[in-house]
Amino acid sequence: MSLSRPDRGLHVDVARLWSTLEEYARYGATAAGGVSRPVFSPPDLELRRRFIDDCRALGLDVSVDAAANVFCARPGRDRTLPRILIGSHLDSVPDGGRYDGALGVVCGLEVMRTLVDLNRATRHTIELVSLTGEEATSFGTSTFGSRALAGRLPDVSDNTLPDGRTVRQALRDAGGEWDDLGAMPSAREPLACFIEAHIEQGTRLEAAGRALAPVSGVCGIYRHRIVFHGTPGHAGTTSMAERRDALRAAALFILAVPALPAAVAAADPSATATVGYLDVIPNSPNVIPGRVTLVTDLRSADAALLAALSESAVAEARRAARDTGTEVEMTTMLDQAPVTFDARVRAALGAVLEDLGEGSAELASQAGHDAVHLGALAPAGMLFVRCRGGVSHNPDESVQPADAALAADALLRAVLAVDASPDFDTPGGLLP
Amino acid sequence: MSLSRPDRGLHVDVARLWSTLEEYARYGATAAGGVSRPVFSPPDLELRRRFIDDCRALGLDVSVDAAANVFCARPGRDRTLPRILIGSHLDSVPDGGRYDGALGVVCGLEVMRTLVDLNRATRHTIELVSLTGEEATSFGTSTFGSRALAGRLPDVSDNTLPDGRTVRQALRDAGGEWDDLGAMPSAREPLACFIEAHIEQGTRLEAAGRALAPVSGVCGIYRHRIVFHGTPGHAGTTSMAERRDALRAAALFILAVPALPAAVAAADPSATATVGYLDVIPNSPNVIPGRVTLVTDLRSADAALLAALSESAVAEARRAARDTGTEVEMTTMLDQAPVTFDARVRAALGAVLEDLGEGSAELASQAGHDAVHLGALAPAGMLFVRCRGGVSHNPDESVQPADAALAADALLRAVLAVDASPDFDTPGGLLP
Repeated sequence: MSLSRPDRGLHVDVARLWSTLEEYARYGATAAGGVSRPVFSPPDLELRRRFIDDCRALGLDVSVDAAANVFCARPGRDRTLPRILIGSHLDSVPDGGRYDGALGVVCGLEVMRTLVDLNRATRHTIELVSLTGEEATSFGTSTFGSRALAGRLPDVSDNTLPDGRTVRQALRDAGGEWDDLGAMPSAREPLACFIEAHIEQGTRLEAAGRALAPVSGVCGIYRHRIVFHGTPGHAGTTSMAERRDALRAAALFILAVPALPAAVAAADPSATATVGYLDVIPNSPNVIPGRVTLVTDLRSADAALLAALSESAVAEARRAARDTGTEVEMTTMLDQAPVTFDARVRAALGAVLEDLGEGSAELASQAGHDAVHLGALAPAGMLFVRCRGGVSHNPDESVQPADAALAADALLRAVLAVDASPDFDTPGGLLP
Repeated sequence: MSLSRPDRGLHVDVARLWSTLEEYARYGATAAGGVSRPVFSPPDLELRRRFIDDCRALGLDVSVDAAANVFCARPGRDRTLPRILIGSHLDSVPDGGRYDGALGVVCGLEVMRTLVDLNRATRHTIELVSLTGEEATSFGTSTFGSRALAGRLPDVSDNTLPDGRTVRQALRDAGGEWDDLGAMPSAREPLACFIEAHIEQGTRLEAAGRALAPVSGVCGIYRHRIVFHGTPGHAGTTSMAERRDALRAAALFILAVPALPAAVAAADPSATATVGYLDVIPNSPNVIPGRVTLVTDLRSADAALLAALSESAVAEARRAARDTGTEVEMTTMLDQAPVTFDARVRAALGAVLEDLGEGSAELASQAGHDAVHLGALAPAGMLFVRCRGGVSHNPDESVQPADAALAADALLRAVLAVDASPDFDTPGGLLP
């Protein structure tokens, strides 16, 4: 697949793209220079309104579905063709950075603005989406909006947000409706494909001196919730020998965790194991911890290695409990198999990046993304953008304006290449 | 010192004492059979009102000071004599037990009821106190009310409670007033002595087959707040080698903690070291922990050993930071020297316990108590009561009715012995 000659001179407006990124970063801006914009929080709701205003000002057709995903469409010449969807998410982790998610939405907005500026007609309807709650882990699920579209959202309706609202109520406050999730029209309207631009959140592009790469697929993720049950007791009067300290069990386990990916590093050097969440009960300086809950996050692009990581984690948790006289309870929170993106979308992105001088060598993603779930509805693919030091989920997330502009150029050209190709005229036709 | 013959037949009303303990345990009762009655919480405020009602019904003079301590006085024949104070606290740790604190207040109430029943006149005014927030560690200080009386309360007025109120506001809601703490009349009125009955929170009485013991003094307590600063980052995309994981640093430190008292066990087998509080930022399963705050609690009855424990903890925290590439920040939260109780109060309690057939052998307390701070105002002493398995700060705290009754009998006899003794006619006269 190669682009027609006229599109080779196509460029987005770098200054407009960058100033929009800067303006969007004011929503939930933190003193550290990042953003704290958890889904359904006041800054998330404010930025949704701003995004809708920007899209309406551009003349796009805006609709909000039951999952509060915001769709902004520019109709194509042939309404019988499936839509070409681009976008990402505008929410962030608490105390996160400016670009994780927002870069993909703003690049998409810049693509739409450029198409409008050029008065460029397309055969397919081109649609930009801002997906709800990609980082919604705090109430029990990530990739909230894309899971809802794919019919994969677990029932978290009664879970509570840090502010005390239920998910059901918070979703309603954002314009969605839990009870209508099963009947979302967006999920059933035909899609030609989905393309998401996103920061790499790793250092491979930086190390290779590249700004962009097509993404081959996304690693699998396995999460356990592990609870160590000890015996709470007075910190001064319970002798050291009598203690069954749940935090000591957790500490033994935490120190065993880095050895898990090390054991499979020969087969998958990108495998990771992390304990990012830990909660102590009763969490009082003068009480021996009686209960510690933690969550392990295990990742590998290889399903068999991921299963091995998970088994090793279970064995380590049992050993930590045995060595401390505590009891352990484990439940699976997430079991997401590795995903390979659609071959034609990957080829289209590879061709565009070759044309832009970036090369078509692919990277596998170590992070989960909305594109994984949209891949269940339509051919999906992703474009990775270099970020400084691979830093992500952190206020120091940093992207160069030139790299952002190149990403938007690539996204624009990929959209036009897909629009021109008969391969994408049949909805979801390339799915197995 | 020995008691006059008529007092040897004195006994409190066991059934009344026990039913009051059971009734008070309904305030903040938990499904596990304990109580969760943190200071200033709704059940704490409800039990204060109930306690005041009970004391007023008995004809006692009730007053609430600026620290919201509740004093209930039965006037003596000679108003020029200093008051004899008994009591403890009614608050509990979150998810705590029924007896830590409440036993001392209810035994004191039973002493007052027995004096009223017997129409027994005393020379001194006998006063029962329920002290505020002995377990108030969550907002930065324990033994809130007794510290306030002794002029030792740090400025925690703007600290917040779990429910979001400031300490200043919560104190006001309980009938106190932060700005008047410096001018509390109770702190300046003369005291003859203070005696507190309290569960042992250890297994020494149980092992010795004794129900009660006089307390020689209270171990010193040193608390550090230790913060490990790492680099937050994405759990999937940050390679294992690049991580500076603050929770890994904390885990290394936590595992080093039990070795601290082991190193001084030959000199003080009762020394303890505990990490009971730990907080992770941002505490999200998909983010490498960027900051972990924990609190160490170190205890020894020997000041030099306590200093050695503290130095070792600092060295271990530095080593954990060095080994994980993180940074560490340490502040002293509490530095409470070991205390020896007043010799005459100890002698009075020893004589009473000999008379009751319990023996006068003393125990040192491994827990801090209000009596430590009241000891700065007047001769102070304590009586330990056997509790099953030494379990404390736990729903399984358990005391036998017969032991509680014996404690109330001992407290009653000790009050009468002190009242009869000219040694306690001069306010605070026995303080060094």
